[in-house]
Amino acid sequence: MKIAVDVMGTDYGIAELVKGTVNAVKQFACDMILVGDAAKIQTELDKLGAHSDKIQIQNTTQVIEMDEHPAQAVRQKKDASIVVAAKMLRNVECDAVVCAGSTGAAMTAATLVTGRSKGVERPAIALTIPGMGNGTVLVDVGANVDAKPHQLVQSAIMGSVYAEKILHILQPKVGLLNIGSEETKGNEQTLATFPLLKFCRQLNFMGNVEGKDIAAGTADVVVCDGFVGNTVLKFGEGLAKTIFALLKESVISSGVSTKIGAMLMKPALEKLRSRMDPNKYGGALLLGIKAPFVICHGNSKAYAITNAIGTTIEFVKNNVCNEISARIESYNKDLMAGNL
Amino acid sequence: MKIAVDVMGTDYGIAELVKGTVNAVKQFACDMILVGDAAKIQTELDKLGAHSDKIQIQNTTQVIEMDEHPAQAVRQKKDASIVVAAKMLRNVECDAVVCAGSTGAAMTAATLVTGRSKGVERPAIALTIPGMGNGTVLVDVGANVDAKPHQLVQSAIMGSVYAEKILHILQPKVGLLNIGSEETKGNEQTLATFPLLKFCRQLNFMGNVEGKDIAAGTADVVVCDGFVGNTVLKFGEGLAKTIFALLKESVISSGVSTKIGAMLMKPALEKLRSRMDPNKYGGALLLGIKAPFVICHGNSKAYAITNAIGTTIEFVKNNVCNEISARIESYNKDLMAGNL
Repeated sequence: MKIAVDVMGTDYGIAELVKGTVNAVKQFACDMILVGDAAKIQTELDKLGAHSDKIQIQNTTQVIEMDEHPAQAVRQKKDASIVVAAKMLRNVECDAVVCAGSTGAAMTAATLVTGRSKGVERPAIALTIPGMGNGTVLVDVGANVDAKPHQLVQSAIMGSVYAEKILHILQPKVGLLNIGSEETKGNEQTLATFPLLKFCRQLNFMGNVEGKDIAAGTADVVVCDGFVGNTVLKFGEGLAKTIFALLKESVISSGVSTKIGAMLMKPALEKLRSRMDPNKYGGALLLGIKAPFVICHGNSKAYAITNAIGTTIEFVKNNVCNEISARIESYNKDLMAGNL
Repeated sequence: MKIAVDVMGTDYGIAELVKGTVNAVKQFACDMILVGDAAKIQTELDKLGAHSDKIQIQNTTQVIEMDEHPAQAVRQKKDASIVVAAKMLRNVECDAVVCAGSTGAAMTAATLVTGRSKGVERPAIALTIPGMGNGTVLVDVGANVDAKPHQLVQSAIMGSVYAEKILHILQPKVGLLNIGSEETKGNEQTLATFPLLKFCRQLNFMGNVEGKDIAAGTADVVVCDGFVGNTVLKFGEGLAKTIFALLKESVISSGVSTKIGAMLMKPALEKLRSRMDPNKYGGALLLGIKAPFVICHGNSKAYAITNAIGTTIEFVKNNVCNEISARIESYNKDLMAGNL
């Protein structure tokens, strides 16, 4: 198995991506292609003393930055690292792509260059959100921001395959993110989606869930529009950060005994922090593309990249893309036959 | 000033609402009308030994439960506590209403029975979300789940008046909740709303904000669709609860030193918990109604009700409803004159 890592355009620079890749080779014995500025990549490899024949370099001369318009940039910058990686994937020169640059550019390159799976209308991004239990797969967290009802059903099917094949959950419970649990609650979009999910035999639909159910782990998979999912995701990141910052502030402004308490409690707080760390799940999965594409947070450190590569290996090994194709085609057939 | 409290249909029963009201009379010397089952209310008052001539009782014989269809129930149950309270407000028999039952029923009773402010298309619910700084006003958290762009502008204006008149923030900074900070980012709804907010002279618009900005306090007021706001709100409540539950679990499964640490740290943790407690802000404000309407969480305890009554007094004193009317009319005039 060979995985391409686009090392360009991230918050902490090439070093973290190269380090994460080198660690992945040690841990998983996979073959890797580092895509980006070859000279800089070589410098980082030298620093780490990493001279493995399992690591290749693919030189590229362009980068798509975070603030560029994704579709324009992907069309114009033919030698951008993400475009080259997506092309290698299309040409089966690698089995999967991992990236941590502009999410918009990654989505666009995956869709336009690698190509969608047959029958998939819109790709969706799935991410495991930490919480009680083993976390909840939230899909879509930002790919399709004005999702049509049957596109939400496709997202639900794709998220369900992810939960089954990678997280090994049997018949994952799927919930529709809504503002109330009753079938009659919701906005136009969720009201129209509910009956489609209810009668979809490719899914184990449990009904509506609310925002509070995400961290509670009520459902295995929670499906929502990309706008809502992205907002929830970023709000959660911000809130967790704020809670830890306020706790620190509260300790600093307290007396000696509280400070001693904080020192003694450090292991428990660290355990909590690592449990709530989204990086441990290793990136978000772009579902609905012909081949595996994993998108990491722009601020990913080496540890997160290594985990993302681990997830990507599972993504490839378990034939998630083929299973998605098969199930989406089965759903589309039901739809055409008027069975829904 | 006379405030009506609907004591029916809440999670913890009449006792908490009566207790919260009695405490409010002591604290704010306001006149109160308790609306609901008179015999039960009297029993609770007797238990507390509260015999103040500042507390009246208005007997009602019906209740709208959480799972009833709001519009149907409001139309059919003429003697439901929330309907009677809304009618008293319309007839100026009281200056404001506080309730903690079904939010849908409260919204419907307020809109159909008390009536909207002139020029307001759809009421919106505003709530202060705790975080860094003094918290952020999030509007709308659930009234209008398929908001049109100019309805979002009205919500922003109403939220802005709240921040100014009740939280005493001069020229509050208003942000549009979106999936990116650039003007070109968003879904159809936010893309259409951005230019309207930009050219609205009734607002101090700062541009797009993201989910992470809510707890960070980047803006004073964050405006969003009721579906998104409600989801974010419930997700935040669930996440904060999960973080505290996991911390407790982590301490319980740890050694003696961590447990001692947790005991010593308790004051700092309590300080954090109370800082992140949405109840301290005392309920959500239903904006766009002719007179003040405050909606408390269904699980409000006496303390939250007392705070909500405190907020309601500010709501009345500062003529928030009149100011909203004036500013919405000014915006509507600009709109009609083609100034936008």
